[in-house]
Amino acid sequence: MRHAALGGGKRLRPYLTIETAALFGVPAKMALRAACAVEMVHCYSLVHDDLPAMDDDDLRRGRPTVHKAFDEATAILAGDSLLTYAFEIAADAATHPDPAIRTALVLRLAQASGLGGMAGGQALDLEAERRELPLSVQETIDMQAMKTGALIAHAVEAGALLGGASVQQIAALTRFGRCIGAAFQIADDLLDHTSDAATLGKRAGKDAARNKATLVSLLGVEAAERRRDALIDDAIAALREVESDAAVRTLTDAARFVAGRRS
Amino acid sequence: MRHAALGGGKRLRPYLTIETAALFGVPAKMALRAACAVEMVHCYSLVHDDLPAMDDDDLRRGRPTVHKAFDEATAILAGDSLLTYAFEIAADAATHPDPAIRTALVLRLAQASGLGGMAGGQALDLEAERRELPLSVQETIDMQAMKTGALIAHAVEAGALLGGASVQQIAALTRFGRCIGAAFQIADDLLDHTSDAATLGKRAGKDAARNKATLVSLLGVEAAERRRDALIDDAIAALREVESDAAVRTLTDAARFVAGRRS
Repeated sequence: MRHAALGGGKRLRPYLTIETAALFGVPAKMALRAACAVEMVHCYSLVHDDLPAMDDDDLRRGRPTVHKAFDEATAILAGDSLLTYAFEIAADAATHPDPAIRTALVLRLAQASGLGGMAGGQALDLEAERRELPLSVQETIDMQAMKTGALIAHAVEAGALLGGASVQQIAALTRFGRCIGAAFQIADDLLDHTSDAATLGKRAGKDAARNKATLVSLLGVEAAERRRDALIDDAIAALREVESDAAVRTLTDAARFVAGRRS
Repeated sequence: MRHAALGGGKRLRPYLTIETAALFGVPAKMALRAACAVEMVHCYSLVHDDLPAMDDDDLRRGRPTVHKAFDEATAILAGDSLLTYAFEIAADAATHPDPAIRTALVLRLAQASGLGGMAGGQALDLEAERRELPLSVQETIDMQAMKTGALIAHAVEAGALLGGASVQQIAALTRFGRCIGAAFQIADDLLDHTSDAATLGKRAGKDAARNKATLVSLLGVEAAERRRDALIDDAIAALREVESDAAVRTLTDAARFVAGRRS
């Protein structure tokens, strides 16, 4: 579990939770536990996705994957335990004094990461790899919205829930989250297309090697870059509805980071 | 997920949740969602434990295991999604109107099934199989208390939480749950020792074939039976503290079922 969760990474999701909570005056220390719960769900998903029966990857964040550093059984159980621990952390009274907010965090985290979100998206992605017919552009967008978009959107939403945001603010911030989640995935696919393993800290060019449907392979590099930039514009437009200068400033930086990242 | 969760089984855990809740006047229909959450965690653990990297079993409840009926990636994701769905169900407002009770259900379910409970116990069990030195009697008792005892105890506790039981009642009922959890495991090991696959619906004699430490192999059949019966006596004694004739009657039947079951 330590190998999976403490081995680096961009920490985009907990950053989004903490910065979104900060818009509503929640100190970083108070948002940290909910942020960790989201990151633990992300880390568990990487451990299971890297397994030989799934994406079969040996390298993650420049280090051996969990099943390479230990063994497959340990990787399955470490992933299971990280996922379970995320819900324990979210439900614990130390995360927020109001149990109604804690149950909302648990409920939305589960919805973002389960059958209708991340795990369901991964199942669709694996199924597509095995089919003769690759996914269409719209199917790829829908699959990626589940596989990576839902948890990134929830990371933003969790900060809004902690901050007691209004329904309108939560809706606008979640739309922001969905847009940067989709942009993040395109940026990821562009990096996979153009980088090498030393820069990425994981195997490069693996999607193309598997004929995996990405928007880069379906639309080409330039159209994918335009779509990524349009999503970032949409994300920044959604922020304006929150009507907070700080929101626009901090989360605009986050959106630009997503579009411009190199690893 | 349907193959894993709807393929039969004894349904001991949801039975315990529903019957314990009924002691406090909670209708079965109101306890059903929390009971399903506990059973889904149990079903996910079977899917992952059956994987080739873990116990490598082909047969479960008289049917092919999930990775045999589908494939390994599907089994990993179906297990992940069942676990996640359990927390979604527990946290949803339809499970109980009071969010404080829902967060307590989520918190205790996570603690019973994660690193300090079921998943941690499975990790210890797998580690023991690979060691030269088998577990001692006390180590086996401790490992089994985590691997099977914690979730069975939580199934009882969940019913008490739904019913608004007092701290003393929850403590007594949880002790009841721990005793029948330990007795259940001994009954399981005795069945594995003496039955055939047709009766069990799963591979028989597999623990002995692996030199897996069980109280049956460590103590012998007769001493294991005596320990099982003493645990059932302790369980029934714990019930007396709840001071409810209905509690003693219904849950005594449950305890006797655990000791006397044949599959």
